[in-house]
Amino acid sequence: MTQAVRHDVMRARNLEVVLGAVSRGGPLTRAALAEVTGLTKSTVSKLVGDLVDAGLLAETGPARVGERGRPGVEVVLSGARVASLGLEINVDYLAARVLDLTGGVRFAARRERDNRGSRPKKVLTELQALATEALAETHRVGLEVAGAVLAVSGPVGDGVLFSAPNLGWHDVRPAELLRLPVPVELDNEANLAALGEFWYGGGERDFLYVSGEIGIGAGLVVNGTLFSGATGLAGELGHVVVAPQGPVCRCGGHGCLETFAGQEALLAAGGVPALPDLVTALERGDAAALAACKAAGQALGVALTSAVNLLDLDRIVLGGVFTQLYPWLSGPVAEVLNARLGLLRGAPPVLTASRLGGDAATLGAAGRVVHRVLADPASFVTRAQEA
Amino acid sequence: MTQAVRHDVMRARNLEVVLGAVSRGGPLTRAALAEVTGLTKSTVSKLVGDLVDAGLLAETGPARVGERGRPGVEVVLSGARVASLGLEINVDYLAARVLDLTGGVRFAARRERDNRGSRPKKVLTELQALATEALAETHRVGLEVAGAVLAVSGPVGDGVLFSAPNLGWHDVRPAELLRLPVPVELDNEANLAALGEFWYGGGERDFLYVSGEIGIGAGLVVNGTLFSGATGLAGELGHVVVAPQGPVCRCGGHGCLETFAGQEALLAAGGVPALPDLVTALERGDAAALAACKAAGQALGVALTSAVNLLDLDRIVLGGVFTQLYPWLSGPVAEVLNARLGLLRGAPPVLTASRLGGDAATLGAAGRVVHRVLADPASFVTRAQEA
Repeated sequence: MTQAVRHDVMRARNLEVVLGAVSRGGPLTRAALAEVTGLTKSTVSKLVGDLVDAGLLAETGPARVGERGRPGVEVVLSGARVASLGLEINVDYLAARVLDLTGGVRFAARRERDNRGSRPKKVLTELQALATEALAETHRVGLEVAGAVLAVSGPVGDGVLFSAPNLGWHDVRPAELLRLPVPVELDNEANLAALGEFWYGGGERDFLYVSGEIGIGAGLVVNGTLFSGATGLAGELGHVVVAPQGPVCRCGGHGCLETFAGQEALLAAGGVPALPDLVTALERGDAAALAACKAAGQALGVALTSAVNLLDLDRIVLGGVFTQLYPWLSGPVAEVLNARLGLLRGAPPVLTASRLGGDAATLGAAGRVVHRVLADPASFVTRAQEA
Repeated sequence: MTQAVRHDVMRARNLEVVLGAVSRGGPLTRAALAEVTGLTKSTVSKLVGDLVDAGLLAETGPARVGERGRPGVEVVLSGARVASLGLEINVDYLAARVLDLTGGVRFAARRERDNRGSRPKKVLTELQALATEALAETHRVGLEVAGAVLAVSGPVGDGVLFSAPNLGWHDVRPAELLRLPVPVELDNEANLAALGEFWYGGGERDFLYVSGEIGIGAGLVVNGTLFSGATGLAGELGHVVVAPQGPVCRCGGHGCLETFAGQEALLAAGGVPALPDLVTALERGDAAALAACKAAGQALGVALTSAVNLLDLDRIVLGGVFTQLYPWLSGPVAEVLNARLGLLRGAPPVLTASRLGGDAATLGAAGRVVHRVLADPASFVTRAQEA
């Protein structure tokens, strides 16, 4: 019962199979690709030719002559044609980053500024200038940007940023205010940072990425896939209840994690105006600063205990400002996790600082476009052939 | 570029496609099946024939003559051959249930007993007697049991029940103590009850099922799929922290949800020895019983607030003993959810009582085997052809 499958569907699938094999295991010769994909050599040659023409693959020099092998040209992902743009609006800065298909950083810029309470239009006009600069630089070196993703700190759905407490924004549609020649998608900063950490950081397949800023968000990666819940709003770690009778939170509740470990609570408890001052105070052993970090770490430990029980976490990555504060936070967090999870789970989860720090969100944002191209190269190949 | 796909792989896939189409949309004629699957009529006829021979599909009487149609025999899932066995060890009872492929209940029995502190061997010997009775009755009516799943209240992995606090068990391998002529798998009661609720209850595709017993577990269904975490231990709602300085919990922590809303805490606060006494007291308006339910409901509301923030829940189903207590618990739970989630999420999640009550776990357990047969009918068809 051999089945005729539609030509274009099968071709799209095979293009993805070949590109994926090179992405995971390249450089590979055409012969090796035929071996790993199970496709015939002539099919592989045609597909590789199309992918090279579309600028998704590139040929390298002849392979080394092995004992039994013969020299052959190998193919690798091409970093010379397709690129993607990651953007971020943070309370303290705007950032842009361009990645090529190999994950190479082709542009990265960060503009420090205080976006607190700024009007969306003003911030997005500045972001547009930064993005335009990134696109110009990218075009100058011959790359074509396939798309852009914008990371924002707050719950997102259908292109709407529902609320960004750090910025004082509600129900903003950033993409509609940005005038860029590429499509711009919106996504949550913690989710994108978690993907950035997965693709370009530790490479672990299961972890919770915690983004500590004024708000505290989290992105859960399970078996290499982002868990985003029924409506994309999962990971609101900042409003996990630490103490039901605790301080009033801006969400209307009491004793949410943010009221203990959010940046504003940390700075107030440490008696310092800004994060760099807190780090300086911690480094010189200031008692108030140390106590502030200890209390925040304990609250974070309680909230993460609840998260581990609900989500079954083996690994927790502390990102955002928690990366900088890791030396002072990690002890109290680990103590609480050990005391509360040791009996039930045997080993408490592994706790680490993010390897990417503040770059995680733009890496995840740009990476999202890169991975979309890798998963569906057919449209690129078709476009290249029609051009 | 037409591709030859291996005969047996394609056939297995097509058997699944045809069986799935009938399962979702039957009764269907062969012509209608060809239409919805895109397969040729002769391929469909061959596949349907094999599925009928294997006892997975059955033919019904001729279809009504439509305006333009012609009479045709329709096929439906067959309830006459394949069955599955769901088993449950609860603290208060043992239960067994047999479902046929259509979801029809072919056997159901529950033996009330106090399993608290009983030796695993004793309980499993009794369960084996009940399961043997279920299998005998099933064979008597001509059904063949494809497999069994056993629901237990506690974290499970690789056939090991790590701990069942309700029973006082640790590291038990129940399947090794059961002597049954069918393969027995082990799974967590709250996860299975969530699947039972999904397949045979409300039919919603996204919800958290909360299982209130002596321990409190939860099963999360996202887009019709169970979320079980990196190692299968997700959903330990009972150890979500409600008050970090609260009562000592058997997990070694303090102020976990179970210390406020577990069955033992509820009974102690209500001043009654057992659940039926609590319900009686509530029905006559006893002040201590009402206060106990109010406090438990508020604690449940706090823990569920954390769960909603982390998991993005639109719907929460209260099961286990919480189903019976729903009239008294739901008010306090909803009040806390409204107060804490209204601002962030707009609408708080919908709260309902389980429609299946104590039957959810055995329905989910038996349903797991049914759905496995529906997802991979090829092995059944092959076996029927070899017999």
